[in-house]
Amino acid sequence: MKIISGGVCAASGFTAGSLRCGIKDSRPTDDTALIVSECECAAAAVYTMNRVKAAPIYITMEHLENGVARAIIANAGNANACAPDGIVNARRMAAAAAKRLGIDENDVVVASTGVIGQRLNIECIEQNLPTIELAADGSDKAAHAIMTTDTCAKSVAVEFTIGGKTCRLGGICKGSGMIHPNMGTMLCFITTDCAISDDLLADALQNVVRKTFNRISVDGDTSTNDTCVVLANGKAGNPLIDWQDENYDVFHRALTEVMTRLARMIAADGEGATKLITCTVAHARTEETAERLAKAVCASSLVKAAMFGADANWGRVLCAMGYSKAPFRPEYVTVAFESGAGTITVCDKGAGIDFDEELAKTILSESEVTIAIDVAEGDAAATAWGCDLTYDYVRINGDYRT
Amino acid sequence: MKIISGGVCAASGFTAGSLRCGIKDSRPTDDTALIVSECECAAAAVYTMNRVKAAPIYITMEHLENGVARAIIANAGNANACAPDGIVNARRMAAAAAKRLGIDENDVVVASTGVIGQRLNIECIEQNLPTIELAADGSDKAAHAIMTTDTCAKSVAVEFTIGGKTCRLGGICKGSGMIHPNMGTMLCFITTDCAISDDLLADALQNVVRKTFNRISVDGDTSTNDTCVVLANGKAGNPLIDWQDENYDVFHRALTEVMTRLARMIAADGEGATKLITCTVAHARTEETAERLAKAVCASSLVKAAMFGADANWGRVLCAMGYSKAPFRPEYVTVAFESGAGTITVCDKGAGIDFDEELAKTILSESEVTIAIDVAEGDAAATAWGCDLTYDYVRINGDYRT
Repeated sequence: MKIISGGVCAASGFTAGSLRCGIKDSRPTDDTALIVSECECAAAAVYTMNRVKAAPIYITMEHLENGVARAIIANAGNANACAPDGIVNARRMAAAAAKRLGIDENDVVVASTGVIGQRLNIECIEQNLPTIELAADGSDKAAHAIMTTDTCAKSVAVEFTIGGKTCRLGGICKGSGMIHPNMGTMLCFITTDCAISDDLLADALQNVVRKTFNRISVDGDTSTNDTCVVLANGKAGNPLIDWQDENYDVFHRALTEVMTRLARMIAADGEGATKLITCTVAHARTEETAERLAKAVCASSLVKAAMFGADANWGRVLCAMGYSKAPFRPEYVTVAFESGAGTITVCDKGAGIDFDEELAKTILSESEVTIAIDVAEGDAAATAWGCDLTYDYVRINGDYRT
Repeated sequence: MKIISGGVCAASGFTAGSLRCGIKDSRPTDDTALIVSECECAAAAVYTMNRVKAAPIYITMEHLENGVARAIIANAGNANACAPDGIVNARRMAAAAAKRLGIDENDVVVASTGVIGQRLNIECIEQNLPTIELAADGSDKAAHAIMTTDTCAKSVAVEFTIGGKTCRLGGICKGSGMIHPNMGTMLCFITTDCAISDDLLADALQNVVRKTFNRISVDGDTSTNDTCVVLANGKAGNPLIDWQDENYDVFHRALTEVMTRLARMIAADGEGATKLITCTVAHARTEETAERLAKAVCASSLVKAAMFGADANWGRVLCAMGYSKAPFRPEYVTVAFESGAGTITVCDKGAGIDFDEELAKTILSESEVTIAIDVAEGDAAATAWGCDLTYDYVRINGDYRT
């Protein structure tokens, strides 16, 4: 498997594009993206577990009931959640895309991100969408058009071989705030030319989401709009994957690679973040225990603030583990901080040990830091990702709507 | 029932005092407090649910097994959690207090707050404690000595009548960061001269904690040291409360009044906070549902940041309700913001309505703001408290240990 360029258009038969419809007066850049396959695709998606779901999620659920889709339309600047005319406008958005492409509106996935509670200006989308241009190198434009407080566009793609055929799988996503996914994160669109049944596509997606997007946290807030969609158009010509055989394993690895990289990009670009925090938990009794511990550490405001200050305050790491509700024995725990600048053990058997504070500061000042925990109880492990808590998070969210 | 002065020494037969032992070089003020009853007390306590518990909690649990105590010793500057010699040093702290007072060390409650993972300098406590002075007006000194990042001392007391006898009940507490109690909060010491059995005292405490300290959140982090203790010495001479009769109800109301006020003080003085946020949920199906919803709103980083910015971003309120895991119907929900400057409804039947943004800004700029939610489904209600998320929270926690 190798990393390639092309993002959401890396797979054969997909094009994308974007334009500015004018959804928000204050946004000068493109706000609407369209991603299209030249033929029908097996499709699978996961959505937010938030009880308050945005209107486009209900429309997408309905359109994907048959496991088939051909296009994705997404906008930034308005979440179309708790908004007047939400369902009607989400339907009109799918219809506008279907009309532009000459396809059935039932084959269109709809996604929105932005402010909650305000009516989506669907008229400006209907007016402008006919002029959108689609291109095989349109991934980057689409990735930019779905950004909100993201500071960079997020995209990755891989190439792999199944049954002697070269397959490609790539995606784009956006994150930034309200990131504590309970499934996928904000918006993530993945395409592949690999031939795979919609059932197995859904299996793979659900399995991989659990270990990637569900393990990142920016601020503990789960959005109303989280959507992660995969379209597989089969253009690679490989034998159809419709069983959990070795070909499925290859596909699963490719999907894991792409989604892990996208999840890390979202964590690293959390609102106001200056660094990516990875927390690994080793030797837990079960993977669920390891996951709970790693996620609690990444989500702790106090750990996040300490990471911002490059403060080796490992007591907060143990404290967060303690309230995670996962079983472990504090007196067995080892904690180390790792980065490109080195590794330092700061807690052994649950108690403080003498360590070089200067070296710790240097290690924690890097832009990627790992909190490595060993609970010395079993064979399971898990990794979670997050970011630091900074002045800019407060600034960005103190007045988001203006 | 009326509010009186005197704090933790308001009840008859209690004295308190403080001094600087030098637990932390960088702390110029008193760091050790002692609270004493002139006779034996019925005693009850609740502790953190964090799996990582500080050493003093284990010693206090042991000493309160018989439901009897006479004194409380507490220090700030070091949590004695995950610390070398933790249990031994917590025992030595109780012994030092017992020696100073000439009482059994089994009758001493021990509590600590401060940095996690460093050895407590017990020697300086043992050396200095013999010189501590105790006085009937010592509550304020004790309240100051247990402060860490608190900006003000917290104390309250009430007077009430049982069986024709005047009773008093008062307390002091400290909070500030790592506040998301899963029982009591950081440290809270309450005394009363009311005669009540230790069983009923424990019943009342557990019941009231659930509706007061367990409903506040500063940052979602549950401390390793949370301890809330009540001592009742019976000096008021009222008939002993040993049944859940009307006298118990009067006592329960007094305890609720004092603990609610202390909990609100802790929320309002959360690290870096500029305002107290109260969230009320009305017409829920069950009290548990109302509580979950109110707590999720108060704990949301995005709601807290919006409150700091006086931004009427009610979408974040609905979003937080949505991920609280409590059942409710978004399409029934009404949300209003209230403060001394007025009331404004911003969401009706789960959707945005036009409102005066200027008035909303004015209402949210007050130092006490209520988010009033009506879920229109039943008869239960609950209230939770929190504070805003500010630049100062990040500053304080970016480098706490130095």
